[in-house]
Amino acid sequence: MKNLFVILALLAQTSIVSLGQVVENSIPAPTNINQNQCPCIMPDNSVVFQVKAPNAQKIQIDLGKKYDMVKGLDGVWTVRTEPVEPGFHYYFLVIDDVSVADPASQSFFGTGKMSSGIDIPEKGADFYAIKDVPHGAISSKYYYSNVSESWRRLYVYTPSGYDQDKNTKYPVVYIQHGGGEDETGWVTQGKTDLILDNLIAEGKAKPMIVVIANGNVRAGGGGYSSEGMAAFKKEMTQNIVPFIDKNFRTLTDKKNRAICGLSMGGGQSFYVGLESLDVFGSVGIFSSGIFGGIRNASGSTFDAEKEIPGLLSKSSEFNKKLNLFYISCGEGDMRIEHTKKAVAAMRDKGLNVEFNSFPGDHEWQVWRKSLNDFASRVFK
Amino acid sequence: MKNLFVILALLAQTSIVSLGQVVENSIPAPTNINQNQCPCIMPDNSVVFQVKAPNAQKIQIDLGKKYDMVKGLDGVWTVRTEPVEPGFHYYFLVIDDVSVADPASQSFFGTGKMSSGIDIPEKGADFYAIKDVPHGAISSKYYYSNVSESWRRLYVYTPSGYDQDKNTKYPVVYIQHGGGEDETGWVTQGKTDLILDNLIAEGKAKPMIVVIANGNVRAGGGGYSSEGMAAFKKEMTQNIVPFIDKNFRTLTDKKNRAICGLSMGGGQSFYVGLESLDVFGSVGIFSSGIFGGIRNASGSTFDAEKEIPGLLSKSSEFNKKLNLFYISCGEGDMRIEHTKKAVAAMRDKGLNVEFNSFPGDHEWQVWRKSLNDFASRVFK
Repeated sequence: MKNLFVILALLAQTSIVSLGQVVENSIPAPTNINQNQCPCIMPDNSVVFQVKAPNAQKIQIDLGKKYDMVKGLDGVWTVRTEPVEPGFHYYFLVIDDVSVADPASQSFFGTGKMSSGIDIPEKGADFYAIKDVPHGAISSKYYYSNVSESWRRLYVYTPSGYDQDKNTKYPVVYIQHGGGEDETGWVTQGKTDLILDNLIAEGKAKPMIVVIANGNVRAGGGGYSSEGMAAFKKEMTQNIVPFIDKNFRTLTDKKNRAICGLSMGGGQSFYVGLESLDVFGSVGIFSSGIFGGIRNASGSTFDAEKEIPGLLSKSSEFNKKLNLFYISCGEGDMRIEHTKKAVAAMRDKGLNVEFNSFPGDHEWQVWRKSLNDFASRVFK
Repeated sequence: MKNLFVILALLAQTSIVSLGQVVENSIPAPTNINQNQCPCIMPDNSVVFQVKAPNAQKIQIDLGKKYDMVKGLDGVWTVRTEPVEPGFHYYFLVIDDVSVADPASQSFFGTGKMSSGIDIPEKGADFYAIKDVPHGAISSKYYYSNVSESWRRLYVYTPSGYDQDKNTKYPVVYIQHGGGEDETGWVTQGKTDLILDNLIAEGKAKPMIVVIANGNVRAGGGGYSSEGMAAFKKEMTQNIVPFIDKNFRTLTDKKNRAICGLSMGGGQSFYVGLESLDVFGSVGIFSSGIFGGIRNASGSTFDAEKEIPGLLSKSSEFNKKLNLFYISCGEGDMRIEHTKKAVAAMRDKGLNVEFNSFPGDHEWQVWRKSLNDFASRVFK
């Protein structure tokens, strides 16, 4: 391995373009811009990064863990990371301690700014690959929000056939991004359209509409705070849902309306969903910090009864109102133990909770799988 | 002015956030991420940029012209530029000679990579502002290309009412981005949806569909080469137009089909449009380099007859086939003189050419105005 690194470093000194071609069995990351060979993914899922910077003093790759790059004779810096988990990861180039997006890669809105992303293919996971199946569409629409007092953009996935069969009405999932992200998250990083296209084509999910709005309703985001939650609840129930029901062919009974989301968006789905069971029949919470340790409305310890009065003491009433109450988390996520405890406590009081976990940390591969799983269970 | 700069530099040493608030009458650029105060636009359209980088040796802002930033005591670098033309400009932060996107701004695909953009409002130009008018939608769709042998994404603007009135069919404009850009250009930088929404609401343009595809059909882009043009022509006429006519409610006669584009996309529109007058009835060319000096298929000097046989010698036949032949250019663009000469030469031989120019260089404000102008003339 050390020899290979030496070879890489030598190659880096001669040519950027040839690197990915020469390193046997490596592939350019699918998130690279155009024909850039680097970042390139090695067979063990370690990644080789490169950047030409003859006059920089220090360059690192920040993938959560920071890796020091090594400067070659021609000013090209190179590093090979440890093996990286499959899936999508935000990362940064750190040039003399300034954290910026890597010009070799696509950028995505995450971590509160435009961030580089690298998508490491997972062997056998083709549920979000583009396939020769009927494809739906994602539309961007403007609506006026009386909460933010501004026009806002949202995205709407409509399944294949929506434009042709003009009488069919569809159930709707409202899906939320995480903190530091926006309405582009589930469109781009999340691959919502491809996941739904594939599920629907295989008959694993009902044809459905998915609405992807921006959950940062108040200035500064602040979705996790109780004010943030209240603002988002108003936005969702008074602005977004009526706008969608007016402009799309939706089934408008609560059995055909679900809310779900990741991380902060999971918290929003928990509170807005469970407090609005006249509006939503199903609720999904992916990798949320509300179950303990990180954040919830009542403090650091999660007490379901305190958060949603009656959720434990009148669990049978909630069971009647909830068609699907779904929780998921990454198995390597610091949130997993608190989540499992919360699920056990709720089940212990008779609440029906469907729970699943997936390999991975607090990251999009877990959320893609969570959407895939949730969409195949909901509206049935 | 120098004093103001000293004040700015002093402010930069104390606080980033307060800067935009303190500098009287400045506004944060609308392209900033979240609540970033910088870049901020001064009343004379000069721009103040900032970045915290205590350990960098040299930082510049590259707005076409490069500006050296000045480091403050707390490691915050600042610069105030000369007045900048209104409209959208790509720019870069250059950290120790590495050109990267500015984390304070949104990023856009342009110049072959993710680039920062700054949008300087133009006084009185509200044709691309979001207004309280009926809004259409932009949808992303996948289609399979037998030219690139891959699935490709395109965007489709449908006007307000498209989903409600299910019998109306619409004329279609196919609009192309420039070199180093992709199908996101006219969606994001170009503000196609807002321009059309406003034109249609004011009765200045017919309700129409606008198709925004990726013009880089061959590996490496190469749209300007004759091979690139041929590949794009095949893609457009054999893949894109049939896909749109199959999946949208289009008027399919050539009178109701137009092609236009900017720069490289103007060149594509010229060749593909004029060589396919059985398919397209109108052609628009914005700021293209084909008219001389920069690039055209036959060499550095533009000879309309050589490029499109018969265009001059049988101009009356072309006049019959062309409902609208439109050319525009920025008045500060190096292409303007060649373009004017080419227009004069074509008119001299009796070819009907509608020509317009707008203040500005080779930039999106000119192209927004060109689309606004073209869309208000076409299909009439």
